[in-house]
Amino acid sequence: MAIKEQQILDANSEHLSGHSAEFQALQHKLTNNGLPVEELIEQIQAFQVAIPSWALGAGGTRFGRFSIGGEPRNLEEKISDVGLIHALTQSAGSISLHIPWDIPENAAATLAFAKSHGIVFDAVNSNTFQDQSDQALSYKFGSLCHTDADVRAQAVAHNKAVIDIGESLGSKSLTVWLADGSAFPGQLNFREALARTLESLKEIYNYMPSDWKLFIEYKPYEPNFYSTVIQDWGTSHLLAAECGDRAYTLVDLGHHLPNTNIEQIVSTLIWRGKLGGFHFNDSKYGDDDLTVGSIKPYQLFLIFNELVEGMKNNASNNPPLAWMIDASHNLKDPIEDLIQSLEAIRLALAQALVVDQVKLKQARDQNDVTMAQEILHDAYRTDLRPLIREARRRSGGALHPITVYRGHAIREKLIEQRGLNTVATGL
Amino acid sequence: MAIKEQQILDANSEHLSGHSAEFQALQHKLTNNGLPVEELIEQIQAFQVAIPSWALGAGGTRFGRFSIGGEPRNLEEKISDVGLIHALTQSAGSISLHIPWDIPENAAATLAFAKSHGIVFDAVNSNTFQDQSDQALSYKFGSLCHTDADVRAQAVAHNKAVIDIGESLGSKSLTVWLADGSAFPGQLNFREALARTLESLKEIYNYMPSDWKLFIEYKPYEPNFYSTVIQDWGTSHLLAAECGDRAYTLVDLGHHLPNTNIEQIVSTLIWRGKLGGFHFNDSKYGDDDLTVGSIKPYQLFLIFNELVEGMKNNASNNPPLAWMIDASHNLKDPIEDLIQSLEAIRLALAQALVVDQVKLKQARDQNDVTMAQEILHDAYRTDLRPLIREARRRSGGALHPITVYRGHAIREKLIEQRGLNTVATGL
Amino acid sequence: MAIKEQQILDANSEHLSGHSAEFQALQHKLTNNGLPVEELIEQIQAFQVAIPSWALGAGGTRFGRFSIGGEPRNLEEKISDVGLIHALTQSAGSISLHIPWDIPENAAATLAFAKSHGIVFDAVNSNTFQDQSDQALSYKFGSLCHTDADVRAQAVAHNKAVIDIGESLGSKSLTVWLADGSAFPGQLNFREALARTLESLKEIYNYMPSDWKLFIEYKPYEPNFYSTVIQDWGTSHLLAAECGDRAYTLVDLGHHLPNTNIEQIVSTLIWRGKLGGFHFNDSKYGDDDLTVGSIKPYQLFLIFNELVEGMKNNASNNPPLAWMIDASHNLKDPIEDLIQSLEAIRLALAQALVVDQVKLKQARDQNDVTMAQEILHDAYRTDLRPLIREARRRSGGALHPITVYRGHAIREKLIEQRGLNTVATGL
Amino acid sequence: MAIKEQQILDANSEHLSGHSAEFQALQHKLTNNGLPVEELIEQIQAFQVAIPSWALGAGGTRFGRFSIGGEPRNLEEKISDVGLIHALTQSAGSISLHIPWDIPENAAATLAFAKSHGIVFDAVNSNTFQDQSDQALSYKFGSLCHTDADVRAQAVAHNKAVIDIGESLGSKSLTVWLADGSAFPGQLNFREALARTLESLKEIYNYMPSDWKLFIEYKPYEPNFYSTVIQDWGTSHLLAAECGDRAYTLVDLGHHLPNTNIEQIVSTLIWRGKLGGFHFNDSKYGDDDLTVGSIKPYQLFLIFNELVEGMKNNASNNPPLAWMIDASHNLKDPIEDLIQSLEAIRLALAQALVVDQVKLKQARDQNDVTMAQEILHDAYRTDLRPLIREARRRSGGALHPITVYRGHAIREKLIEQRGLNTVATGL
Repeated sequence: MAIKEQQILDANSEHLSGHSAEFQALQHKLTNNGLPVEELIEQIQAFQVAIPSWALGAGGTRFGRFSIGGEPRNLEEKISDVGLIHALTQSAGSISLHIPWDIPENAAATLAFAKSHGIVFDAVNSNTFQDQSDQALSYKFGSLCHTDADVRAQAVAHNKAVIDIGESLGSKSLTVWLADGSAFPGQLNFREALARTLESLKEIYNYMPSDWKLFIEYKPYEPNFYSTVIQDWGTSHLLAAECGDRAYTLVDLGHHLPNTNIEQIVSTLIWRGKLGGFHFNDSKYGDDDLTVGSIKPYQLFLIFNELVEGMKNNASNNPPLAWMIDASHNLKDPIEDLIQSLEAIRLALAQALVVDQVKLKQARDQNDVTMAQEILHDAYRTDLRPLIREARRRSGGALHPITVYRGHAIREKLIEQRGLNTVATGL
Repeated sequence: MAIKEQQILDANSEHLSGHSAEFQALQHKLTNNGLPVEELIEQIQAFQVAIPSWALGAGGTRFGRFSIGGEPRNLEEKISDVGLIHALTQSAGSISLHIPWDIPENAAATLAFAKSHGIVFDAVNSNTFQDQSDQALSYKFGSLCHTDADVRAQAVAHNKAVIDIGESLGSKSLTVWLADGSAFPGQLNFREALARTLESLKEIYNYMPSDWKLFIEYKPYEPNFYSTVIQDWGTSHLLAAECGDRAYTLVDLGHHLPNTNIEQIVSTLIWRGKLGGFHFNDSKYGDDDLTVGSIKPYQLFLIFNELVEGMKNNASNNPPLAWMIDASHNLKDPIEDLIQSLEAIRLALAQALVVDQVKLKQARDQNDVTMAQEILHDAYRTDLRPLIREARRRSGGALHPITVYRGHAIREKLIEQRGLNTVATGL
Repeated sequence: MAIKEQQILDANSEHLSGHSAEFQALQHKLTNNGLPVEELIEQIQAFQVAIPSWALGAGGTRFGRFSIGGEPRNLEEKISDVGLIHALTQSAGSISLHIPWDIPENAAATLAFAKSHGIVFDAVNSNTFQDQSDQALSYKFGSLCHTDADVRAQAVAHNKAVIDIGESLGSKSLTVWLADGSAFPGQLNFREALARTLESLKEIYNYMPSDWKLFIEYKPYEPNFYSTVIQDWGTSHLLAAECGDRAYTLVDLGHHLPNTNIEQIVSTLIWRGKLGGFHFNDSKYGDDDLTVGSIKPYQLFLIFNELVEGMKNNASNNPPLAWMIDASHNLKDPIEDLIQSLEAIRLALAQALVVDQVKLKQARDQNDVTMAQEILHDAYRTDLRPLIREARRRSGGALHPITVYRGHAIREKLIEQRGLNTVATGL
Repeated sequence: MAIKEQQILDANSEHLSGHSAEFQALQHKLTNNGLPVEELIEQIQAFQVAIPSWALGAGGTRFGRFSIGGEPRNLEEKISDVGLIHALTQSAGSISLHIPWDIPENAAATLAFAKSHGIVFDAVNSNTFQDQSDQALSYKFGSLCHTDADVRAQAVAHNKAVIDIGESLGSKSLTVWLADGSAFPGQLNFREALARTLESLKEIYNYMPSDWKLFIEYKPYEPNFYSTVIQDWGTSHLLAAECGDRAYTLVDLGHHLPNTNIEQIVSTLIWRGKLGGFHFNDSKYGDDDLTVGSIKPYQLFLIFNELVEGMKNNASNNPPLAWMIDASHNLKDPIEDLIQSLEAIRLALAQALVVDQVKLKQARDQNDVTMAQEILHDAYRTDLRPLIREARRRSGGALHPITVYRGHAIREKLIEQRGLNTVATGL
């Protein structure tokens, strides 16, 4: 279900004069403030976020799942949906596969198909939190941390297989998220479980091609509700440091205890040169996996403020980060939801880019707390949507992606094509 | 899979002399403290907790589910499992059905079958948080609160049908838990949704037989992650007060924001005569649905302390409460898990019963904070397990239920009988 | 330390052409969207927030307090500071007194002095959370809930005295915030404490003049760290309902457990016609008392969205609300901090006023979750600062209040006048 | 205000026969379970907890403070109070000084005085979270992290002075708790603040005598309510690792976000050989500083379970830990409060010591979650108070310390001696 370039151009043409006026006013304002607008646009255009292959279908909770209709039935349809999102937004130029849900039958063909949509393959993700029907040993009591060496070996082998698949598609990194942990006090020897996890991770790390990176996620709880082996960034960092130079911590915004200062974690990891990437989403309670920017947009801006400033003053040579959306689309059309997330991300990026870093440094040096807040608020309160739209437009995307998506009745066509009660593989 | 009385007696006989010594020592100690041991035992014996019909199978999370094997395949097998638990513990004399998962084909036969296990039917539970395959309208966007009157009518009709089924089995109450809410800011007009919910609840309330009670649960989040229509006890209480005298608030221990003082909520509701019942479980993070007493046993004791004291000084004529376990058995054998929960509940009850209420009142009157704590700790730190065991033994239960359960390899026999990969209906 | 009208006009003149251009562009945009700009400006101008008398000095924590210098030494200087803030912002036209910190020696003179600054007297606040040196009985173990009837009588008498003082100054409401609660399990009989509190509140309520309102605050914890007698809105609402028609719940944004959906509480209280007023501040962890809008500005907008929509569709005749800032200025100059808070409040109000309520209703009726979010985001992301500034300018305030405040070196002059180590009475 | 050995013996004699019976029954039971009772008693006797010098007076909150009366007026009286507690409990054999509140005028005399009470000097604590009247530069905007090198130098010099004082008293470690952080987004450059903090800590570390240890505390918030420079164990661990082998993380139970799994942090730090010590207290909401074991006694047990098991299998040679109570006594008599804390600590220790580690290991190896819980519960539910009392009695302490304390009307005598409105130095 592709959208044609011309369709986007046509749709844009209706809004072009309004947009131009808004953009010029903003351009004028920013230029007056000494900001290099063209450079900002390039930075925004360059900012690409991976879409995970599992995000194109309806998500669910333990209480049930409601179909959205027209969900992709296979990897090609998933790539096709990402291609559509990318065509509209020009900001989703990669896909992140989840194995075993998305094993390509023919890597070369899959690669070519993706390329035809302008899509490359980002980090690959392993899955040792569920049992597959053909699996010899169960992950019920853990995988890389399991007390049984055979289970650990199976989980390590799976990760190696995922690396192999990733390599065949041009991926350059593996993301490991572990559900390993315990549901009740007493169940696990924390120290031994952590030591076993480290040993397993090292084996995976050593198997990676030399230009690959390992991303280690952390999460305080869920699906285990007493402990998680990698409960926080500190634990992930310990493991990454032990694994080696190409192992990094990956931050998922929803994987924190209430009230955590995530932006400070981001900053600390950049200080160590150990921040690998991001899983974007938003949440009010736990790992709610809501649309990015739908609950705490100011926090998202503060995080981007650390990212922008930190990577600009990157004394520890932190490598470029991997960006991915990791949300669950329980009620909204996943494609619309992802478009909203992409918009929120680029908006936060743009807000961070227009922060007056010189004045901010000055205010900080003088402990002028009032002024530091004024500077952040000035950036955050500026309506930068015309800048985002201009960047998208120049890249060939739609000024108003959701309007185009709805205008072409794409979901309806997908339902027609794929059926009403499809379930995306893996969900 | 029944266990025979004689088997329990045989098992007990091995431990009897040890138990007797321990019990007598405790009896001596309690009597010295002026406590009426025989009366305590009777109160403990009388304390019966309902087992929900969905609790006999393995639970799961949105990330997956691991089979336990030998799970009940139908209502009879569920009743049979409850009967087994009751035989062992003599504290689970009722079952709470969930409709439509457990519609009896023949109510009279089901009643008779349950009776043969010593089991009666507690509150019935409706389900408007999932769509059933034969359902005309979807609950994706709510049920009793839905913007569409037809969906509300369907949900009300379902609740009425549940009442009818309950009546045919001798139930005397309906528990309504609503997943209704919103996933994102803006989605719902809070006021209007609440007003519609009240209207729907009134219709259900008015349909109930005159000796029935309506229990209204509250929950701050999940499966909706921005808002829940009945988010807290205050909202439930408003609705119950508007519905009428036989509408009450039901407290589920896991349905609270972090750090909530639940015991105070319990106390306030008793003060208003509006506490209807309890769903027991334990949690560290959210609605984790862990074994009762596995995470915060002291809080459980404090809650029972309010219940015991409040019902003893029941100025508002709060009716007797409905007790149910509502946990999810993701890793443990559900039967073992429930036995552990029942033990924790009775232990907390016993601890509350031995609190020196006279001295506590005195300490409170004098604002003697140290002494108030000493009094609670004295009750809590006393090992009352011999008292619990004696109560169980006298009722015909096992001194050590899990030992008996394992000794007879009951799970293995259930697996043999029912199969390894059964999924309990509804899960 | 007053600022003269002409000084503000002079300061504005420098920024006027830039402001006019920005305002006209915004005006154009809003008008195109069908919004009545002049009406919006009037609504914003009319929105006045009370400044509490204790907010003009440096706040502190249990770990210490750092002076800001030039803090007001008496009630007149406090009124003078509020007058200054009001002159600059035209949005702080009232002061809320805290008794016994601010007992006027001569009410008529105080009234006249306030009037000369354009300031009226908002709700009066009683204090039964500290002992005063001349106090007969201690509030160590509570006040309105105390076990000792004499302490309760003293606390009630104090509240009556506060009402008398308020009456002499033209106040029309009393705000009661109770620290009453318990530090340890067992200390308090929750039910009895609540019953005693109700009895005390009724006596205070009945003493109020017939055109007064009683505002009952709630708070889950601090300074008591186990329980607070009025722990949540539900408890406050119970008490207000029992007291009578002119008793209302007051919401302080910082008085909630982690992750509470405050906007829904606001909505529910308006539904009942029982929302009395607001204490504005912001927080990340607990009752942090930070500058309004400094941590969760989107939540503030969502709250205003409920307030605006709720009061427009006010079926229960909720009376107009009392607005107050209740923050602590530990590091920032209090005057600058309050100016930032006032700006954030009016910005959130303006954002709520430009929400397209017609389209929002439509989206809700159709359960179009994506569109509901788009509508809110469109309002929130629009830069409405020119509108706020225009409203302020028209009222005679400064386009850039902090710039004017700093430009005139007012803090330095206050320090010269009042000294460097003053401590505002009461702090 | 010393209590004489004979007075304790006399008091014990009244309870001795009852105690002996209870102890023998427990001894019998434990011996039957294969536990070495005499060895347990020795381990309990050896477990000594430091009392901080600031803990002997009434604490307070930002809302006020209520006197307890008879509070120590100087260091000698503080030592005397600790001596009293130690005489009664035989478990508080050391004091932890806070500088500048407790600078000894004559170290030799202070040492001798302490010795006469059986008290030694534990870790010394520096204070850079408050300004002292004679201080050149302010810590308002931080100390070791300050942007101004002169402030950092002052704070480092203070820490060195604290080490000097400690050395003169026989202390062997310095505990650094920093309030450094920020109250608002933007105020601080996180990375630079952390780098400056590390630099300052290294200077302090290098100044320490070669047999000293440096303990680095962490805390997520308060008194700064947006960020703390050392926000979590991960950050503390980074700093400690960079400082050197004798730098360790110190865990204060109250310094965590809601729901944190503290026992797992403890375990991880032991795994790294980097756990330095503990500050005991309890809390329901934040850093509530309540009596140890008063809110979450089971969590305390779980923590001790990690400590006992971890130090027994100490592959990383984690050194012996420093134990201290760090609570605030807002309502209770501090001496009674500390006695209750000491009791709770030893009880949790004893519970951990009787955990059947062999069976637990077995259950874990088999992923027998039910049994792992049974094993922990069996230890936790056993009433080990007779064991604690026996250990105390054998060391010369009171069977019932609070009863003796009250029986001798010690607080009343202290009030007589010291006055009713004393304020302990530093508070």
